Amino acid sequence: MRANVIYGKGDVRVEDRPDPAIRRPTDAVVRVVAACVCGSDLWPYRGVGAVEWPRPIGHEFVGIVEETGAAVRTVKAGDFVIAPFVASDGTCPQCRNGITTSCDHLAFWGETDRDGLHVDGGQGQYVRVPWADGTLVATPDMPDPALIPELLTLSDVMCTGHHAAVSAQAGPGRSVVVVGDGAVGLSAVLAARRLGAERIIAMSRHSSRQALAREFGATDIVAERGDEGAAKVRELLGGVLADAVLECVGTKESMEQSLAVTRPGGHLGYVGVPAGGSELPIHTLFSDNITVAGGIAPARTYIPELIGDVLSGTIAPGKVFDLTLPLEEAPDAYAAMDQRTAIKVLLQP
Amino acid sequence: MRANVIYGKGDVRVEDRPDPAIRRPTDAVVRVVAACVCGSDLWPYRGVGAVEWPRPIGHEFVGIVEETGAAVRTVKAGDFVIAPFVASDGTCPQCRNGITTSCDHLAFWGETDRDGLHVDGGQGQYVRVPWADGTLVATPDMPDPALIPELLTLSDVMCTGHHAAVSAQAGPGRSVVVVGDGAVGLSAVLAARRLGAERIIAMSRHSSRQALAREFGATDIVAERGDEGAAKVRELLGGVLADAVLECVGTKESMEQSLAVTRPGGHLGYVGVPAGGSELPIHTLFSDNITVAGGIAPARTYIPELIGDVLSGTIAPGKVFDLTLPLEEAPDAYAAMDQRTAIKVLLQP
Repeated sequence: MRANVIYGKGDVRVEDRPDPAIRRPTDAVVRVVAACVCGSDLWPYRGVGAVEWPRPIGHEFVGIVEETGAAVRTVKAGDFVIAPFVASDGTCPQCRNGITTSCDHLAFWGETDRDGLHVDGGQGQYVRVPWADGTLVATPDMPDPALIPELLTLSDVMCTGHHAAVSAQAGPGRSVVVVGDGAVGLSAVLAARRLGAERIIAMSRHSSRQALAREFGATDIVAERGDEGAAKVRELLGGVLADAVLECVGTKESMEQSLAVTRPGGHLGYVGVPAGGSELPIHTLFSDNITVAGGIAPARTYIPELIGDVLSGTIAPGKVFDLTLPLEEAPDAYAAMDQRTAIKVLLQP
Repeated sequence: MRANVIYGKGDVRVEDRPDPAIRRPTDAVVRVVAACVCGSDLWPYRGVGAVEWPRPIGHEFVGIVEETGAAVRTVKAGDFVIAPFVASDGTCPQCRNGITTSCDHLAFWGETDRDGLHVDGGQGQYVRVPWADGTLVATPDMPDPALIPELLTLSDVMCTGHHAAVSAQAGPGRSVVVVGDGAVGLSAVLAARRLGAERIIAMSRHSSRQALAREFGATDIVAERGDEGAAKVRELLGGVLADAVLECVGTKESMEQSLAVTRPGGHLGYVGVPAGGSELPIHTLFSDNITVAGGIAPARTYIPELIGDVLSGTIAPGKVFDLTLPLEEAPDAYAAMDQRTAIKVLLQP
């Protein structure tokens, strides 16, 4: 099969890889219908953090089940499935608590699972899915092709934005600020609106992203940053800072910005992978009783809650995809996202 | 009047101080009936952190209103009142949000208020109380003297323990671990029980404190610390860590212990003043979706909720006082708490 592999900083290559097969009775093999590039894929692409090269990359995909192991009960060959951005068994105490991302058998796409078996990356033609029952969510019927980008967002960004909103307790009567105008930040705006927040301020400096933020439900845009941005938020909210702040980037600057716009007693929901030296300053949090919640989103837990609204068209998170490319052009997809000429790129194997 | 003053490490002295008087129309003057020593008073006493010497000390007291300024409406001369451990105006956005500890006019006992006027310490015969309406809570009637220690705990420790429990979402069906067996930790056990938690594990190595923890509602005691303590908690809870962890100390060690016993997706409620290098490790919290909530307890917000249970005898938090001394013997009170021969000392002016 063909699959995308990261070789080093700025170097991804689509190449021939072995076709996956069932290795354990709990496995499924999925033929990928659509995959995409994540903001967090850009960290290794930009050379941030230590990663082993080369390795298959990509952790968001939807597809059709080709084959299942003997123990798989909830999906079958021919099903259209959504894969969350990690694999989880669905039965351990962590999964039962809804924290599938802390599963006792957690496996990452493109890495090695806890039994030492290779797991394919999501940006490829086929993927061996460990713990298929715990991991995959099948749609009731074969979806309309137009819904594929919408469903693909449930693999990560829409669930991650929703996690930020839930973690920050966004909802009716709560003022919301979203820090970050990437696909996750935009999804977080949509999630906050879906949860009933009436006042949603998106911090963004890019006109196309501002426009999509408004379309997703943002009532105000703040282009200023730092103290000036915080002052603008305070002014918009009548002299107080925000009840609920959704941190959707993960850098030191974005975390500082997020803290600077959270009111005393407010909730900061953070979902940006901490990759730029971001910290949680205990004295500030303690003095102002700011609650910090969030982390790596347990997408698998949220998909059943969100899928109905996607299938009914109540929410259309797929608008975060503003570029679609064939899998073979994955290097161009990374370059476009790195240079911020695209918000998020969908790849078609 | 006589009042306690801290001069330096290990050096507190009861001495003559000017009698307070009404300085602004929103003030009250309170004759202190009972005061006490807080675990956080021990930080400057132990030389931790930079403080200006000498200064009046003590921030927990109950007493009788002697006189009120012309603008005071909710308390009057002769009322028995509880003073929370900071003064707040009760009307600013922060107070209206319940975060009285972030009040726009916040004042600390023993320091200078935002108008540059001296505020007396709580360990003395009289105190000028700024923002009397926002700060003080009067009892419906003159309480039975036996209830005075109970009511005094509402000044700080009982409300602080309650804040830990609320912040960690302790309640029915949630497993609870309390880290810290000082007066706040013990109050936190009582608060968790009051909120309906059925399983409460107190981490304590001191038999007298273990006994009071059990009396307050702890179902299990773990004397082990570190990894061994965490393993014991996991074993007691059937292979998982705790849903709700109440950090009631504030040191690096106690925070690490608290994180080590919180399950993925669990809630850490922390109220120990961070004074020993404690940190919130973002990567751990992010990976395991641990929510961190709490901070300096908005006692003023909680007193009306808790006072009924104290007056009715439903809870008896005053048991944390295991030594009563005259105000003149304040140095002995500090020494007893520093050496942990007393849990908490009540001072009678």
